[in-house]
Amino acid sequence: MNGKKGSIVIKIVDRPENGKKDSGDAGESPARKWIRDVWQFAKEDMNRITFSLKVGLAVLLVSLLILIRAPYEVFGTSIIWSILTVAIMFEYTVGATFNRGFNRALGSLLAGIFAVTMMQVAMACGQIAEPYIIALSIFFVGAITSFMKLYPSLVPYEYGFRVILFTYCLIIISGYRMGNPIRTAMDRMYSIAIGGIVTVLVNSLVFPIWAGEQLHLELVGSFNAVADSLEECVKKYLADDGSSHPEFSKTVMDDFADEPAFHKCRATLNSSAKFEAVANSAKWEPPHGRFRHFFYPWSEYVKVGAVLRHCAYEVMALHGCLHSEIQAPYNLRCAFQPEILDATNQAAELLRSIGKDINNMKRSLQTNLLKRVHSSTERLQRSIDMHSYLLTSSHEIQDCPPKLPISQPSNTITCTSKDSLSQVEESESNDEKLNSAYTKPVQGDSYHETMRKQQRRLYSWPSREVDDYEDGDVDTEMLQKMRTFESTAALSLATFASLLIEFVARLDHLVDATDLLAKMAKFKEDY
Amino acid sequence: MNGKKGSIVIKIVDRPENGKKDSGDAGESPARKWIRDVWQFAKEDMNRITFSLKVGLAVLLVSLLILIRAPYEVFGTSIIWSILTVAIMFEYTVGATFNRGFNRALGSLLAGIFAVTMMQVAMACGQIAEPYIIALSIFFVGAITSFMKLYPSLVPYEYGFRVILFTYCLIIISGYRMGNPIRTAMDRMYSIAIGGIVTVLVNSLVFPIWAGEQLHLELVGSFNAVADSLEECVKKYLADDGSSHPEFSKTVMDDFADEPAFHKCRATLNSSAKFEAVANSAKWEPPHGRFRHFFYPWSEYVKVGAVLRHCAYEVMALHGCLHSEIQAPYNLRCAFQPEILDATNQAAELLRSIGKDINNMKRSLQTNLLKRVHSSTERLQRSIDMHSYLLTSSHEIQDCPPKLPISQPSNTITCTSKDSLSQVEESESNDEKLNSAYTKPVQGDSYHETMRKQQRRLYSWPSREVDDYEDGDVDTEMLQKMRTFESTAALSLATFASLLIEFVARLDHLVDATDLLAKMAKFKEDY
Repeated sequence: MNGKKGSIVIKIVDRPENGKKDSGDAGESPARKWIRDVWQFAKEDMNRITFSLKVGLAVLLVSLLILIRAPYEVFGTSIIWSILTVAIMFEYTVGATFNRGFNRALGSLLAGIFAVTMMQVAMACGQIAEPYIIALSIFFVGAITSFMKLYPSLVPYEYGFRVILFTYCLIIISGYRMGNPIRTAMDRMYSIAIGGIVTVLVNSLVFPIWAGEQLHLELVGSFNAVADSLEECVKKYLADDGSSHPEFSKTVMDDFADEPAFHKCRATLNSSAKFEAVANSAKWEPPHGRFRHFFYPWSEYVKVGAVLRHCAYEVMALHGCLHSEIQAPYNLRCAFQPEILDATNQAAELLRSIGKDINNMKRSLQTNLLKRVHSSTERLQRSIDMHSYLLTSSHEIQDCPPKLPISQPSNTITCTSKDSLSQVEESESNDEKLNSAYTKPVQGDSYHETMRKQQRRLYSWPSREVDDYEDGDVDTEMLQKMRTFESTAALSLATFASLLIEFVARLDHLVDATDLLAKMAKFKEDY
Repeated sequence: MNGKKGSIVIKIVDRPENGKKDSGDAGESPARKWIRDVWQFAKEDMNRITFSLKVGLAVLLVSLLILIRAPYEVFGTSIIWSILTVAIMFEYTVGATFNRGFNRALGSLLAGIFAVTMMQVAMACGQIAEPYIIALSIFFVGAITSFMKLYPSLVPYEYGFRVILFTYCLIIISGYRMGNPIRTAMDRMYSIAIGGIVTVLVNSLVFPIWAGEQLHLELVGSFNAVADSLEECVKKYLADDGSSHPEFSKTVMDDFADEPAFHKCRATLNSSAKFEAVANSAKWEPPHGRFRHFFYPWSEYVKVGAVLRHCAYEVMALHGCLHSEIQAPYNLRCAFQPEILDATNQAAELLRSIGKDINNMKRSLQTNLLKRVHSSTERLQRSIDMHSYLLTSSHEIQDCPPKLPISQPSNTITCTSKDSLSQVEESESNDEKLNSAYTKPVQGDSYHETMRKQQRRLYSWPSREVDDYEDGDVDTEMLQKMRTFESTAALSLATFASLLIEFVARLDHLVDATDLLAKMAKFKEDY
């Protein structure tokens, strides 16, 4: 089977940022460090600089309306409202700005209409009643808009409700105190409209930052993050000989500094809210760039993201296995290494290929890759099936070929060359597997040293000393516990493999979801 | 062992909302339905009503400053800025309002100082250069504040940067066009300060809604959500006889309508951003209610939440097992039911107990519960160890007691009465377990029917038809595949158990994190 092709490269990023930082930290003033950090931040995504300059440009343009005499004489002082509008409406992406502009415009309009109506009603009621009616209406507008913006389906329009509230208050109060509410309202509307138009034009015409493009890239990035994280996790799992295992309690609090891909994967899991917000903004954008037809299915991106997250949960569980306190012996992991690695690499390759297709807006069925993933996963299943006696308790092993001392090679992986194991269908490889699990040459550590380590690992659970041995013979119970833990430790490999298989099973659905996206977004077909 | 006490009750909420809604939907106008929905929404959390009325009150109070003649004559028209301030500053919780007020105050102050300074500089440069200098300064203030608010550590102060931008523009432009910039700035500051003070007073004195209290309750709720979800998942896993299994592809898209606790658990996982925002608000609040000392460790709440999320990832993986397409045979699940149920109930009880302790602000060591959780988990480990031959491939079973036809009882769980299995230490129970797995009386379904179902299940993976049998004898290969799937299916029970054990292992860290919180927050001790 040709599952090996292109599946060897595992990118473990060697913490370039940290490395750089460390080398630079020595003998540098905080100010310089700060400037370098800011520069780094800007360089990461040049859109940040673009955005900042655009905001500067927009406020400058609006200010010119006042600084230059001619427009100032036309509009008067109410033009300062357009500055406020720019400052409040200018958002990072075009879609978000449109969305906010819509909120602002509709909010102002509704508030204006309602305020003018209310003004007429209040005036009709006579001069004594007028302030009371106005005060009451202000109270109710405040209460009702505040309540409505809490309502789940209206939360995206939160800003619109704020606009309604203060526009209503401003118009009705200016009208009461300064007379001619319609004039006041109109002046303000003009100047808000000018601010809004400047904002929209600058934002969408000068180096536009499209939410759609961001969403697209974010989704592609998520695919790569999950693929990297899967490979990183499996590679660490296979390489981990248990000699240098940090306490879980020390690492549970978000560190895992040597696992950059894991961080990206967890960030993907935590970014569902942001993802939805960007998709919501993208819906407001006109066709642009690569996304050229109307009603582009941005919501499908969210759905694919959700299915991908579903896959990522399995990676989190695999990561849990990796840092679990109950670990399968290194030798056992080594024995199944070729199959596990192969399935992982195929799955990661499929993920990256889907990501690449989305990135290139190509629609392909991925049949070949999917087939390969399935066959390598099947091989893993079969291999585990064949050698399941290795995975379970030691009673049975005693009936099997003679049990040799468990040895623990030092850090280097010594069994990577066992490519021959791809033909695990032959049950003759049983013995080979067994040998690989139990007869590894002792490298460095003595047998006793190894056993001591192994025991420490097995005993590290439960870590809190709450179990007192009140009853029975302590030694026998200890011995029995030992054996149970040993067996559970071996089963942990089965768990790891099962999670990997479950991950692959979910890839089917990911392929389906992506295909639906490709169909709805009319990606160009490429069979 | 006393692990059974209080462990039987599993709350599966019977979808009361859905039930109600369905019964009410028939023959009701959309308007009435909408009103009922809104009313339901308000009733869920009366704070929503309180908040709305408070906003109404705050804008009313500020409006009175204009509607009543005396204050209006003192402050003049610039008082309308206080209305704007109320509308923008009034947030749901006291802490968020304080935070926003701080942003507004500091932003206005900085902008004011900078604007006045810049004004002097511009004036000193002569009348021709003045507008150019002002325009340039506006551009740079716009660009720099926009860039800074993107910087990760400054993101919480996003609003402050907006305030700086528009306050600076307003002051410097009013100053240029209307003369006397300091007078303009001062007038506006007064009126903003009045708006801010009214907002803060109304928000914190009239039925205050504390972010701290919200955070506290949210954390307690998360504990219960994880506990409920764990129990729900395990109960479904044990009850699922595979007869009515929806397609995963149909359920992957977020439905699982009959698993309310799962939804809550996933909401907990997705709410990390909200959790941190609330904690950030809580830090701004003075000591209040139950949280009576200064520097209350709100950040510890976030840490406990993170550890709890770590546990919840395992629940997600368990849930993945439950909806996996490769399923352990029902009989096998039934055989290990007492141990799995016991461990689950103990773990859920521990979670609820921790949640309750946090809720009551009590510090207790949970030694007893933890001990029980550990011993019941050990029992599960040992039982799996003893009966591991059941979990692995059928080759070995053929050497064991005669293999009886696999039968599949209908929906009811028939093996719940097997309490006796808590003494699994005796290896004589081997036979009993085996019998329970293989000799269940056939209920309803015939043997062939059952086998057909079982095969359908085993074959449902891989679900996409991409595997063609190009080479070899199809029948033999099929047979071999069958066997492999069967074995993997059995191993899936081991996976489920391992995940459960890993979940329990993480509880240790949860207990530690909670204990640290209790110590730092000075919960009253209760040993």
